[in-house]
Amino acid sequence: MTDTAPRPTLEAVAARAGVSRATVSRVVNGGDGVRDVLVERVRKAVDELGYVPNQAARSLVTRRHDAIAVVVAEPETRVFADPFFALQLRGISKELTAHDNQLVLLLTEGRDDHARVGRYLAGGHVDGALVFSLHLDDPLPELIQRAGIPTVFGGRPGWSGDRQGVVYVDSDNRGGARDAVRHLAALGRTRIAHITGALDQTSAADRLDGYRDVMVDADPRLIAEADFTPAGGERAMRELLDRCPDLDAVFAANDLTASGALRVLRESGRRVPDDIAVIGFDDMLPVAEQTDPPLTTVRQDIEEMGRLMARLLLRDLDRGASHGGSSHGGSSGSAADGTPSSVVLPTTLVRRASA
Amino acid sequence: MTDTAPRPTLEAVAARAGVSRATVSRVVNGGDGVRDVLVERVRKAVDELGYVPNQAARSLVTRRHDAIAVVVAEPETRVFADPFFALQLRGISKELTAHDNQLVLLLTEGRDDHARVGRYLAGGHVDGALVFSLHLDDPLPELIQRAGIPTVFGGRPGWSGDRQGVVYVDSDNRGGARDAVRHLAALGRTRIAHITGALDQTSAADRLDGYRDVMVDADPRLIAEADFTPAGGERAMRELLDRCPDLDAVFAANDLTASGALRVLRESGRRVPDDIAVIGFDDMLPVAEQTDPPLTTVRQDIEEMGRLMARLLLRDLDRGASHGGSSHGGSSGSAADGTPSSVVLPTTLVRRASA
Repeated sequence: MTDTAPRPTLEAVAARAGVSRATVSRVVNGGDGVRDVLVERVRKAVDELGYVPNQAARSLVTRRHDAIAVVVAEPETRVFADPFFALQLRGISKELTAHDNQLVLLLTEGRDDHARVGRYLAGGHVDGALVFSLHLDDPLPELIQRAGIPTVFGGRPGWSGDRQGVVYVDSDNRGGARDAVRHLAALGRTRIAHITGALDQTSAADRLDGYRDVMVDADPRLIAEADFTPAGGERAMRELLDRCPDLDAVFAANDLTASGALRVLRESGRRVPDDIAVIGFDDMLPVAEQTDPPLTTVRQDIEEMGRLMARLLLRDLDRGASHGGSSHGGSSGSAADGTPSSVVLPTTLVRRASA
Repeated sequence: MTDTAPRPTLEAVAARAGVSRATVSRVVNGGDGVRDVLVERVRKAVDELGYVPNQAARSLVTRRHDAIAVVVAEPETRVFADPFFALQLRGISKELTAHDNQLVLLLTEGRDDHARVGRYLAGGHVDGALVFSLHLDDPLPELIQRAGIPTVFGGRPGWSGDRQGVVYVDSDNRGGARDAVRHLAALGRTRIAHITGALDQTSAADRLDGYRDVMVDADPRLIAEADFTPAGGERAMRELLDRCPDLDAVFAANDLTASGALRVLRESGRRVPDDIAVIGFDDMLPVAEQTDPPLTTVRQDIEEMGRLMARLLLRDLDRGASHGGSSHGGSSGSAADGTPSSVVLPTTLVRRASA
């Protein structure tokens, strides 16, 4: 709907210059091996027609777009509702921009759209992909593998054990969870409950494992499943109070979940931390500071995770380029040839008022 | 970093089939004008090599990607901080998904990155663009025009007066502002102040015009400039209280601005609405309901604006396609040939406690 005339095509330039499309393409992409007289003729036609070289044409030669796709395996509504994603995208955006690469965020309404995302990734529009918030049995990893583009995952993919060359950036979810539960135990709490995240994600499964590492034979009724959302935290907290009115501590799988749990505890007249101590995970600001009382939590550097994901991918692309122009050179997976390998960042316990 | 071998190329298929790249490309894209025996040979080679047709190659023929770029002319940080953008993207996402088009959100750190966005738009990766939150003297419109792809703008572009064929979706900002100020006047308020939005955006300029339509010779000290953010609303409200301690009403350019102004009024001990009545713009939920007191505001249907932007663009692309496959056919601008034309949505005053 801009007011331009149709954009002149490669074909139009070829016709005007009286050369083949291939010749125009070669000139547009550097002119290697084209006689000067032809280069001259093509340049003249390009100027006369105001031809804008089409990246699709150029990419057939260079295979580089300076564009990186970011795929969050969540519906668009969650991407904007959960500050976790904004933080991770912030880190990615800063790193990509610093290297003049375009951040291409592929939004979806849900999993039914992932096949279309796979087509776009396979379509030669981006050099690589950063993928996070994967769920088990999500078709994305398979689609991405078929797309054959270098990829770095945010969070350990559930199937990564089976595969070579899968690179991811993650936090020490299990270790962080152990620290949280040990802290509650050190406070003298004995009936320590856990509200899980979405258990089809490794971050939630790992945090549950960390809880179990410390609560070796925990009463199974002390574990309630939720989904990393405040609403899920409210539901799970009500369940727990029904099942175990005598619980004296809660480790919530993330800060949003904890904020929901705190609301329910307040409604039910429980004092935090006196009656029930609460710990979250993320140190998501301002959430963790604005809960009542302010939240003791396990800090992970979410923005840094995003920055690292982008850095690892760009490094792999550069390696690929230096190995003869094919970014797929980075796909071999063995770390021996300098391929980046996965990174797991440490977590730290941040003490506030809730535990 | 996936564990795939390098993806077989068009060249590899051509070599295997013993035909030219052009022939492979034609077969892959429908096989028009290729002898059956060659089509057979190419199909065989494609199967044997497990070749995934590259959209970059296909797009040279079909010029269609079923992908729409969305560009918000704001830094990534604002896109995620201001719920306005999430709402507009929600409407866009629903409409594009309903038509199996991929939403490609191009994020930036700021205006310095718009040249790169222009390159991606010109690069043959998307069929069209939805662009919103433009500021005057932003290079984007020029870059988009050069990219030569159909575009629909969210909000009237400042320069649209000068150009033909510019299609946008907007709200009746001036009429809505008039309703707000008339309502305050009807409450008997006489010292009605206005906190503007970012005046390099037409939405802010139009709301200021609407204020002036009613406050024909308003004391200029009653107008304070802000930027659509809560922090800006706080600063501007302090300015106004300094300059005009006797003001009895404030029309804020949007709800976030009003929420900042309300905080400052509370600190300063003013009662709302008794001492000072306040009206916002957007009816942004939950913001407008959770302010203290709940906010009287001018409602615009932000999600519907996004939906309409996507619908107008897709209609134009379909028209373009039906006119011989070039989506640029939709760029002519004249509405006579059925090109969608701009839409301005009405606004409604929503009364709550603040005025």
